[in-house]
Amino acid sequence: MKLVFIGDVVGSPGRAVLKEYLKKIKQKYAADAVIVNGENAAGGKGMTKKVYHELLEAGADMLTMGNHTWDKKELFDFIDEADRLVRPANFPEGVPGTGIRYMKAGRKKLAVINLQGRTFLPAIDCPFQKADRLIEEASEQTSHIFVDFHAEATSEKLAMGWYLDGRVSAVTGTHTHVPTADERVLPGGTAYITDAGMTGPYNGILGMDKNIVIERFLTSLPARFEVENGDVQLNGFAVTINAEGTAESIKRIRITPDDPFFD
Amino acid sequence: MKLVFIGDVVGSPGRAVLKEYLKKIKQKYAADAVIVNGENAAGGKGMTKKVYHELLEAGADMLTMGNHTWDKKELFDFIDEADRLVRPANFPEGVPGTGIRYMKAGRKKLAVINLQGRTFLPAIDCPFQKADRLIEEASEQTSHIFVDFHAEATSEKLAMGWYLDGRVSAVTGTHTHVPTADERVLPGGTAYITDAGMTGPYNGILGMDKNIVIERFLTSLPARFEVENGDVQLNGFAVTINAEGTAESIKRIRITPDDPFFD
Amino acid sequence: MKLVFIGDVVGSPGRAVLKEYLKKIKQKYAADAVIVNGENAAGGKGMTKKVYHELLEAGADMLTMGNHTWDKKELFDFIDEADRLVRPANFPEGVPGTGIRYMKAGRKKLAVINLQGRTFLPAIDCPFQKADRLIEEASEQTSHIFVDFHAEATSEKLAMGWYLDGRVSAVTGTHTHVPTADERVLPGGTAYITDAGMTGPYNGILGMDKNIVIERFLTSLPARFEVENGDVQLNGFAVTINAEGTAESIKRIRITPDDPFFD
Amino acid sequence: MKLVFIGDVVGSPGRAVLKEYLKKIKQKYAADAVIVNGENAAGGKGMTKKVYHELLEAGADMLTMGNHTWDKKELFDFIDEADRLVRPANFPEGVPGTGIRYMKAGRKKLAVINLQGRTFLPAIDCPFQKADRLIEEASEQTSHIFVDFHAEATSEKLAMGWYLDGRVSAVTGTHTHVPTADERVLPGGTAYITDAGMTGPYNGILGMDKNIVIERFLTSLPARFEVENGDVQLNGFAVTINAEGTAESIKRIRITPDDPFFD
Ligand SMILES: [Fe+2]
Ligand SMILES: [Fe+2]
Ligand SMILES: [Fe+2]
Ligand SMILES: [Fe+2]
Ligand SMILES: [Fe+2]
Ligand SMILES: [Fe+2]
Ligand SMILES: [Fe+2]
Ligand SMILES: [Fe+2]
Repeated sequence: MKLVFIGDVVGSPGRAVLKEYLKKIKQKYAADAVIVNGENAAGGKGMTKKVYHELLEAGADMLTMGNHTWDKKELFDFIDEADRLVRPANFPEGVPGTGIRYMKAGRKKLAVINLQGRTFLPAIDCPFQKADRLIEEASEQTSHIFVDFHAEATSEKLAMGWYLDGRVSAVTGTHTHVPTADERVLPGGTAYITDAGMTGPYNGILGMDKNIVIERFLTSLPARFEVENGDVQLNGFAVTINAEGTAESIKRIRITPDDPFFD
Repeated sequence: MKLVFIGDVVGSPGRAVLKEYLKKIKQKYAADAVIVNGENAAGGKGMTKKVYHELLEAGADMLTMGNHTWDKKELFDFIDEADRLVRPANFPEGVPGTGIRYMKAGRKKLAVINLQGRTFLPAIDCPFQKADRLIEEASEQTSHIFVDFHAEATSEKLAMGWYLDGRVSAVTGTHTHVPTADERVLPGGTAYITDAGMTGPYNGILGMDKNIVIERFLTSLPARFEVENGDVQLNGFAVTINAEGTAESIKRIRITPDDPFFD
Repeated sequence: MKLVFIGDVVGSPGRAVLKEYLKKIKQKYAADAVIVNGENAAGGKGMTKKVYHELLEAGADMLTMGNHTWDKKELFDFIDEADRLVRPANFPEGVPGTGIRYMKAGRKKLAVINLQGRTFLPAIDCPFQKADRLIEEASEQTSHIFVDFHAEATSEKLAMGWYLDGRVSAVTGTHTHVPTADERVLPGGTAYITDAGMTGPYNGILGMDKNIVIERFLTSLPARFEVENGDVQLNGFAVTINAEGTAESIKRIRITPDDPFFD
Repeated sequence: MKLVFIGDVVGSPGRAVLKEYLKKIKQKYAADAVIVNGENAAGGKGMTKKVYHELLEAGADMLTMGNHTWDKKELFDFIDEADRLVRPANFPEGVPGTGIRYMKAGRKKLAVINLQGRTFLPAIDCPFQKADRLIEEASEQTSHIFVDFHAEATSEKLAMGWYLDGRVSAVTGTHTHVPTADERVLPGGTAYITDAGMTGPYNGILGMDKNIVIERFLTSLPARFEVENGDVQLNGFAVTINAEGTAESIKRIRITPDDPFFD
């Protein structure tokens, strides 16, 4: 099984670059399925029904989310019917949506799990305990499990990678919007990268207007962030997983004005 | 001017890998000077006099520090004489040591500045205000300025990069111990990377024993971290800076069992 | 000199209880001046011009602020003319408004200083360093100085109290919205209380609708807080300061349905 | 049923003041049982076997803990046999000790529950969910339930008080070491106070040497805190609970050099 993952799509520039490249990427890497983190897809924060369908039409087969899941209230209205979207699974019982969904990837079944970290992020149920329970559940159905762990601290993300090594096919971090260069297959056979990076503006700060963000650091005054304009980037990776669900390789994908895409 | 920077050296495994490769790296990249982040060099936390000299003998020309600067009390005794070491400059007035030092790199003078972030880290003076003052001071002596911004949040590091773009030769982030893949020369001519990564154990979590770190996430109990054993890695980058102090290129350096070093 | 301080006034219920009691309190304690924390006075967050004048008409002689200072954008338009309002002084240079103002209290001049803490609150300039500079400045004009230190952590507030003991007439904490029972005159002659408490709804959580706040703790979902209804409370204290600026006594004021006001 | 609760006992000065007054307090308030928070009892941090027995001999019938529970490693050896000690119940499954214990108070059975907050404190299981489960369990055995919620944020503590109102006899906050003046019986019949305060040095910062704490705020350098010397204080409260487990009154207890104890 070959999978492509694309990191946090930010606003309309992110959606535009996704539309431009995703089908070409899918082809280049012969991907059976594409998973896209969409927590920033609508105006930089959250998800609307319109954007949800736009991302699926661009080629996403499953969407993962994160701490910005609920920023557009509209999501509450359709999240339970959104069978191509997972939100962090470790929100407490009773919260709308689900943190695990199954899909076809080639001829196999793939489980996609979304979890959220707790270091430097708001309190929530334990992502490690929740991972144990979901992997136990998923393992009854498939040996192909993909985990997007949306977290801030590199320690928590590496801990999740090592903790799940040998139990899932891949663990990617998201949230920091900067791609890391530490992609590898861990000894137990789990593909791992600390952060997939973001997809959207190239010259902003996490996709946001850099002058506004800098001003906030300089003055400590509140600021209303806006999506940056201009050049764009796309970040993600491709993984190859064998029939037993073991990762064989992970390869970063990065498209920027400095690193153009080649078919 | 050609500079090599090596990210956070962790404990004796980090010092060993540095000794093994640093002189070869210096040669390969024809480096005029090597800057090494040493905040974790002594037992995973802090700096001793013995380790200070060991790092210089391994080929470091200047050492930068971070939030672990003061973890070995011994440093207080020699920091003011340690003319090859800078600690974060934005500690308040009166704190021992200095956050800026000048050195020869080839035939030029190079200023090395160390700053520490405040997002998800303890309160300290503003790194942006402090950067302004130090760059003003340094610019009277040289157009070659190197900044190690030791910080947790990608937003704060990117903000510093863009804020200093065109005013310094290079800005590197350190502290997260995971190398990022976003190295570039910003439009104003400043080489930038969000995090240089770490140097030391390859199979730990930030260099520490992974089982201890995972156990702490699982139980919320306090833990005494120990440096991990086994395979090692080295992370950093090389920058080329022209006579005006403008960066022309930045290239990541990564040595792991999966990415062996070639001369 | 006799001063009355009233803790964080929250929304219209807070303004209503202030109007009902402040002039009676002023009379009961023979107060030469009344200082009121107004950071939550407009709709629970921030300050408008209308509310500013409403609080002055209710009997406030000076208003202090806090982390919610800037929540109503309108304040930027009039803060520099608002000579009865101080915002935390340790915002960086260039931020509108001022953190120290002088007023008449009886026949004396009184300096009122507002500072904001950094523990569990956003990064800002050091409140201790800033206090030193402002007290030096104020001491040239008067020996009567009142400090509202808006901070979260009891350690930081107690540290400020002890740090300024003997240099100012009174230090009150604000921000936690719960009155503390530790009022005392410190050995150097500074009246101190860790938190003055809030003024507004009695049955909410920090003045906000308790069901919404509880729901947020239960679900980790974002919530739009609203000011609570029903019974109200008022919290603050009275201090007596001698001619040299030394505090002689501090007495808590608390009005609730369970502790009614007596003239 | 009459209960006395004494807030965080800090080090040997805290134990000394407890020994001096606890039996007198017990007599004065005709207490059926005394509960004492002991998380700082051994040298300012944690609990040893010797101190455990010392507190029981001083008159404590049950000890509650908090974020410093594990600071003395020795506790791991005897916590499972310490049938007079509860640690925060919302540590994950598998952690030694227990968060609920039952005891005789007069002729009735009393359940004592300890929980820890998550706002501004490390990640841990949800205290609200855990409270629900423990109260359900305890309610099968008794209608007298006492909760010590060890937490930093006033919002989280007030939320717990209101959330449990009518389901338990009393909720006290601990951890900030400063007594609050908001004690009341909530409408559902639960006695509540945001923080009981501490027991130990009167002139320190949270019981610690004030000069060391101030120095840390001024320099941002690490510091080894030590217990303060000199005058002492004791803080806590007495509650009266009727036969149905409903609180009828709550009265603060405060002993300081400024507020001496009278029989
Ligand atoms: Fe994101
Ligand atoms: Fe995120
Ligand atoms: Fe480090
Ligand atoms: Fe660090
Ligand atoms: Fe407030
Ligand atoms: Fe506040
Ligand atoms: Fe404590
Ligand atoms: Fe505590």
